[in-house]
Amino acid sequence: MSNSTVSSVPLPLADRIRAGDVRAVARAISLIEDDAPQAADVVRAVFPLTGHAYLVGITGPPGAGKSTLVDKLTAGLRARGQTVGVLAIDPTSPYTGGAILGDRVRMQTHAADEGVFIRSMATRGHLGGLARATHEAAYVLDAAGKDWVLIETVGVGQDEVDIVRTADVSIVTLVPGTGDDVQALKAGIMEIADVFVVNKADREGADRLVASIEAMLSLETFGPDEWRPPVLRTQATTGAGVPEVLEAVDRFRAHPHQDQAARRRVRSEFRLKELLASQFLDYVQQQVLSSGELDELLGRIGERTADPYTVAADILARAVGRKGDA
Amino acid sequence: MSNSTVSSVPLPLADRIRAGDVRAVARAISLIEDDAPQAADVVRAVFPLTGHAYLVGITGPPGAGKSTLVDKLTAGLRARGQTVGVLAIDPTSPYTGGAILGDRVRMQTHAADEGVFIRSMATRGHLGGLARATHEAAYVLDAAGKDWVLIETVGVGQDEVDIVRTADVSIVTLVPGTGDDVQALKAGIMEIADVFVVNKADREGADRLVASIEAMLSLETFGPDEWRPPVLRTQATTGAGVPEVLEAVDRFRAHPHQDQAARRRVRSEFRLKELLASQFLDYVQQQVLSSGELDELLGRIGERTADPYTVAADILARAVGRKGDA
Repeated sequence: MSNSTVSSVPLPLADRIRAGDVRAVARAISLIEDDAPQAADVVRAVFPLTGHAYLVGITGPPGAGKSTLVDKLTAGLRARGQTVGVLAIDPTSPYTGGAILGDRVRMQTHAADEGVFIRSMATRGHLGGLARATHEAAYVLDAAGKDWVLIETVGVGQDEVDIVRTADVSIVTLVPGTGDDVQALKAGIMEIADVFVVNKADREGADRLVASIEAMLSLETFGPDEWRPPVLRTQATTGAGVPEVLEAVDRFRAHPHQDQAARRRVRSEFRLKELLASQFLDYVQQQVLSSGELDELLGRIGERTADPYTVAADILARAVGRKGDA
Repeated sequence: MSNSTVSSVPLPLADRIRAGDVRAVARAISLIEDDAPQAADVVRAVFPLTGHAYLVGITGPPGAGKSTLVDKLTAGLRARGQTVGVLAIDPTSPYTGGAILGDRVRMQTHAADEGVFIRSMATRGHLGGLARATHEAAYVLDAAGKDWVLIETVGVGQDEVDIVRTADVSIVTLVPGTGDDVQALKAGIMEIADVFVVNKADREGADRLVASIEAMLSLETFGPDEWRPPVLRTQATTGAGVPEVLEAVDRFRAHPHQDQAARRRVRSEFRLKELLASQFLDYVQQQVLSSGELDELLGRIGERTADPYTVAADILARAVGRKGDA
């Protein structure tokens, strides 16, 4: 409630975002990333301006060359005169954070190009919030007029895979000779990929990897109007095969029987529920629980004199004013 | 509300769990993993029996030998006569799922040992829920009388890192010669590790990796009573160094000025809020929104005639009966 009526920052910032002001976009994403109180106002203000951008999720194991692929896809889209926002999810990870940040340096190719906005997203230090922050940052880029938003994640981790899964199109990048091929086939990759990219296709094992993916696809039954994920080969470092990836994305986007609307709906529903939950928790802390009560309840849970399910049910009953009822 | 009073499954199941019945434990974890309606009752019933087990989080990049380390830690704890539950988080990932499942095979060493319960957790196919399911599965193992619960995750992905971070003690496993060393030092690994393990310590580069971690630790200021994470070397395949890891965990556990209570509190608070949010969302769908209303609201959000923040605020106001107020 507290942020919904008073809004000092949002309106001018939203105007600047709409105008494509890079510093305003960067500031808005920082507010979102920091989970700042003004973030809600910013997202609310930019939301009516969204719905134009097409969200491309790109995932794959570390070392698959995702950043280079994203770089080349960006160049290809720019060559068409279209604008691009890039969100590189820098996971809460001691292991890959550095690599992704390092890769970002390469993307300096586009640093002087106003049609490209590149941003690493990190959410270290607080529980939850990665998917939410990414969705909201995508809204900001959409509102700023970007035609495409490319979201790159390392394909390990539930949030990270969910982000890609709920994009408008999901590209799964694999690389030969890492032993990922067989495992990938085992582990339900089919659910995620709209387009498969075998990168570093000049490496030994590329044919086998492509064949394995095709063999797996051949086990699935695709209806005559259903989208069948293509398996493409790229060498992202040279750019070979990248135009074909963009063509596949275009075809997917134009495909009449794909689940575009359903997917956007899932994303909206997920987002709405997250928001509702977060607003409810704020309400509970501000209006329902007395000062120090949460600590006391957590203390009782810690001593096992109360269980979290019953405590939650009691708080809910009080919040919705059903105490005397039932 | 629906599951809180009627309970056909829980009580007998909880009794069997308390008695350490392996099939009851497996059944309870399956209910939790599937997010089945009975899961809440099971967790509520076992909760009073928990608080005994010590939760050890073990994370590290793919290939660091975490599973072998967990195997040897399990053997070491069993040799002391203590019981062990193992939860191997099998991430929603096309890439590592297979590897972790493969590694599980090795742990068949303990298959005939009643003092060990090993379980892979997967949460493919629905958004969210990995951390919740893992915490609840840990409750079940705790209630079943396990002295230790070892939780193994691949250290990439926000949920996965959060799970380890909120364990009672967090072990970060690194391996020489993967280039992870420098990156690890960059990316805030300090926040997570209570104990560093350099596994495959016979490999070239082990000394350098240990030195890098020590150098980084030397930049931190530790108070005289503060815990300083030790950097240990292991060869998990032979078991070398594993007793020292257990000793470090024991020392951490006994350490007077560590943040044990605070960490359990964070875990409880996170868990309570998740539960409260999930109960509230159920309530909203069952009691607040009329049939078809969610679809209609999502449609308006899709058309941008409504924004998710305002829709959420309106639903909240109705749920807590504040419509006429304000």
